[in-house]
Amino acid sequence: MTNTNPGQGLLDRLTRVLPQRALLMGDAIGPVYQEDRRGRFSAKPRFILRPGTTAEVSAALAACDAVGQRLVMQGGRTGLAGAHRIMEGEAVLSLERMTAIGEVEPESATLIAEAGVPLQAVQMAAARANHLFGVDIGSRGTATIGGAISTNAGGIRVLRYGMFRAQIAGLETVLADGSVLSSLRGLDKDNTGYDLNQLFIGAEGTLGVVTRARLRLHPAPVAEQIAVLSVPTIAAALALLRRLKQTSGGALSAFEIMLPDAYAGVIGFLGMPPPLPLGAAFYILAEIQASSGAEAAEQTFQAALMAAITEGEALDAIISQSQREFAALWAMRDAFADYTRTIDHVSSGDISVPLSAMAAFLPQSQAALRQIDPETAFIICGHLGDGNLHYVIQTQQGAAAMECLLHMVVAHGGSVSAEHGIGVDKKPWLRLSRSAAEIAAMQRLKAALDPRGILNRDRIFDHLGR
Amino acid sequence: MTNTNPGQGLLDRLTRVLPQRALLMGDAIGPVYQEDRRGRFSAKPRFILRPGTTAEVSAALAACDAVGQRLVMQGGRTGLAGAHRIMEGEAVLSLERMTAIGEVEPESATLIAEAGVPLQAVQMAAARANHLFGVDIGSRGTATIGGAISTNAGGIRVLRYGMFRAQIAGLETVLADGSVLSSLRGLDKDNTGYDLNQLFIGAEGTLGVVTRARLRLHPAPVAEQIAVLSVPTIAAALALLRRLKQTSGGALSAFEIMLPDAYAGVIGFLGMPPPLPLGAAFYILAEIQASSGAEAAEQTFQAALMAAITEGEALDAIISQSQREFAALWAMRDAFADYTRTIDHVSSGDISVPLSAMAAFLPQSQAALRQIDPETAFIICGHLGDGNLHYVIQTQQGAAAMECLLHMVVAHGGSVSAEHGIGVDKKPWLRLSRSAAEIAAMQRLKAALDPRGILNRDRIFDHLGR
Repeated sequence: MTNTNPGQGLLDRLTRVLPQRALLMGDAIGPVYQEDRRGRFSAKPRFILRPGTTAEVSAALAACDAVGQRLVMQGGRTGLAGAHRIMEGEAVLSLERMTAIGEVEPESATLIAEAGVPLQAVQMAAARANHLFGVDIGSRGTATIGGAISTNAGGIRVLRYGMFRAQIAGLETVLADGSVLSSLRGLDKDNTGYDLNQLFIGAEGTLGVVTRARLRLHPAPVAEQIAVLSVPTIAAALALLRRLKQTSGGALSAFEIMLPDAYAGVIGFLGMPPPLPLGAAFYILAEIQASSGAEAAEQTFQAALMAAITEGEALDAIISQSQREFAALWAMRDAFADYTRTIDHVSSGDISVPLSAMAAFLPQSQAALRQIDPETAFIICGHLGDGNLHYVIQTQQGAAAMECLLHMVVAHGGSVSAEHGIGVDKKPWLRLSRSAAEIAAMQRLKAALDPRGILNRDRIFDHLGR
Repeated sequence: MTNTNPGQGLLDRLTRVLPQRALLMGDAIGPVYQEDRRGRFSAKPRFILRPGTTAEVSAALAACDAVGQRLVMQGGRTGLAGAHRIMEGEAVLSLERMTAIGEVEPESATLIAEAGVPLQAVQMAAARANHLFGVDIGSRGTATIGGAISTNAGGIRVLRYGMFRAQIAGLETVLADGSVLSSLRGLDKDNTGYDLNQLFIGAEGTLGVVTRARLRLHPAPVAEQIAVLSVPTIAAALALLRRLKQTSGGALSAFEIMLPDAYAGVIGFLGMPPPLPLGAAFYILAEIQASSGAEAAEQTFQAALMAAITEGEALDAIISQSQREFAALWAMRDAFADYTRTIDHVSSGDISVPLSAMAAFLPQSQAALRQIDPETAFIICGHLGDGNLHYVIQTQQGAAAMECLLHMVVAHGGSVSAEHGIGVDKKPWLRLSRSAAEIAAMQRLKAALDPRGILNRDRIFDHLGR
């Protein structure tokens, strides 16, 4: 079925149906398409498709599907599971020229963005109209809306606003055969057959190409505060989380954890004075975003933090008193990813476990990893409110450690990929989290919507047809 | 492929794999399975499957799939699009014996319920643990969790809590071939391949059988209040909606509209004194559910209502001052469906239009329907906050009126089925709301997961294979 050399016929057709700037070949292909921030091997793409409209995406896909030309989808190339890395024989479909962003529509509190719009541009457009976009991740300046939808991006405020899936009021997508599915009306209630939009969210580009999205916005908060706390145990941290959930009336928007080596490491990396002294067992960053009643929300937050200290849930706490302090404390959390890139012999698991298992999981996994390498350093940071840890360790035994870690995650009812997806790099672990029946169902869906397997083939799972 | 007479072979196999009470045949089949509250024809089912466990569902489906025995799914049989009505040659798969409900798990604020549990039982279990379940519909005592998931039920609090889809933290489903997909862990973040759960929500039983669900709960409100208001225009009602959204800090939980004939009709039907005098252009019911700060929330609500009157958005308002008044005002809204069943020559459209089009749509549609029948009465009620109207009319020209209404809905960017689904009765209208490419994609998904077409065949769209 697959033509391994597309040859002149396909290129002739693409030249006919696309404007010149939408097709790059030969020396015109810059190295940017082969970039991988983890430095792994990327093959040279046969050509680059850069459509500027949904109609061009459709025409390009129909041409490639007719001859079985495999395509790898590229947005901002910030993915952490290698899905955008090019394999031998693939061409690139980049959404980089689809960067239009619409006005905020006040009646529905939504806006429409094309797939190539950076996440930060949506955040800024929302803020200009006194709204807030609910998803924030460290790569906001580069990651695109299309990529964030395709990986169902999460980040720091899932606790309050949900994953990227919860932000989608409508999608436009193009199937492998070029047919366009458009559901951008953004109705709150529309039970007319299957909600096809859901299929493409988190499918990592394997089922269709997201070209446009109608995104839900929230009212801009009238007050934001962040507190940094030291806590003695995981059980205490979870008691603090319950307290803040119960008292904040939904305003609690982030609940992050840093283990001591992560906290000390980031402090040293940034050369900043520590907000709280080093040496505590765990550090928590808790944020509220109040939608109304700023003063009351801040008073409630402060009273809850004081009660937490009285009850022994927290040992010490500081709270941001200005927008500058607020930004500085978040900058500390944001620097975690950059800091970990400076460390040798690092392995990283993006895992989640149920909160009810967290207090058991953390010490048990640390003990097991120390059995493999007694020198293991735990540079762990994460979204504790969601049960999601970025379980970064420094060890000479990376492969064995990850194998051990992920098995322990699953034994505690958790997931081997909380928010980064499976892509290429995590395929060996998919079977730990998903059953054979589930993977078979995924493969049936893939075959139904992309029978020739041209879209991000061999991402998430192996292609069936060979 | 399809065996039109399952004969003794299938019954022998079912008798072998199921306990006696899970299989009803002949005279043991009560009339309840053929009930349809709209009184339309239902064929006699060949037999009734009443599995008590997921394993029994799996065994029953595998047996039926092997010989192509078509099955119609039944929950509480309260669906309003006829999906549960039996067609010639079908047997029934009823989830009535799967009624187990688990404890509320405080750490995740979820519980697990089997498909046959009535919605009201989940609401009560949540309330006993000081939580709230976010979906409420009039048929709460009979409608089941499985049916509500399969139709993505909506109701009165979608404004705040979203459709049923938003309540799902995990699902267990059985495919036509008997394979079980289990994703009940309920992790907030789990990006390990496709989120298969989404497929079955709102698929009206055509893609698989929902057997269990992990449902999300919310903190029980610390205060609830409802206000009834008279408003002069739709534009004024929408200004009031925006005001309440902006001031309530997310506490606004319902925003219902009643047109004068609906308001007067329900008042008369219940024989109650009208909360506000008859004769206004529109009546609004607005509810807040505060998650914290009861007194402040109530004061904010009252201040917003007074400001709305000052600004001319509302003409008059009363507000519930006790739990008894709160219940009485909701009882008025709840009685709407019963009231409309007492009216002759009634036609009903469950439609939604974007809020930005509502002020134009309502008078234009009324004018168009009066052109068809000048005597048309408009007994309209609905969830204005979601753009969803139950567009009930009394006319001798029902068929022509519905045809006209639904075309006008689509011309205004709306949906021909906001929350009731397509089932059998609304199939003629599906093509108004969904494109040929979308319907083709639905059929491809159906064929991928149920290749013999045994599950609720010919619901939503026609089966491809004949």
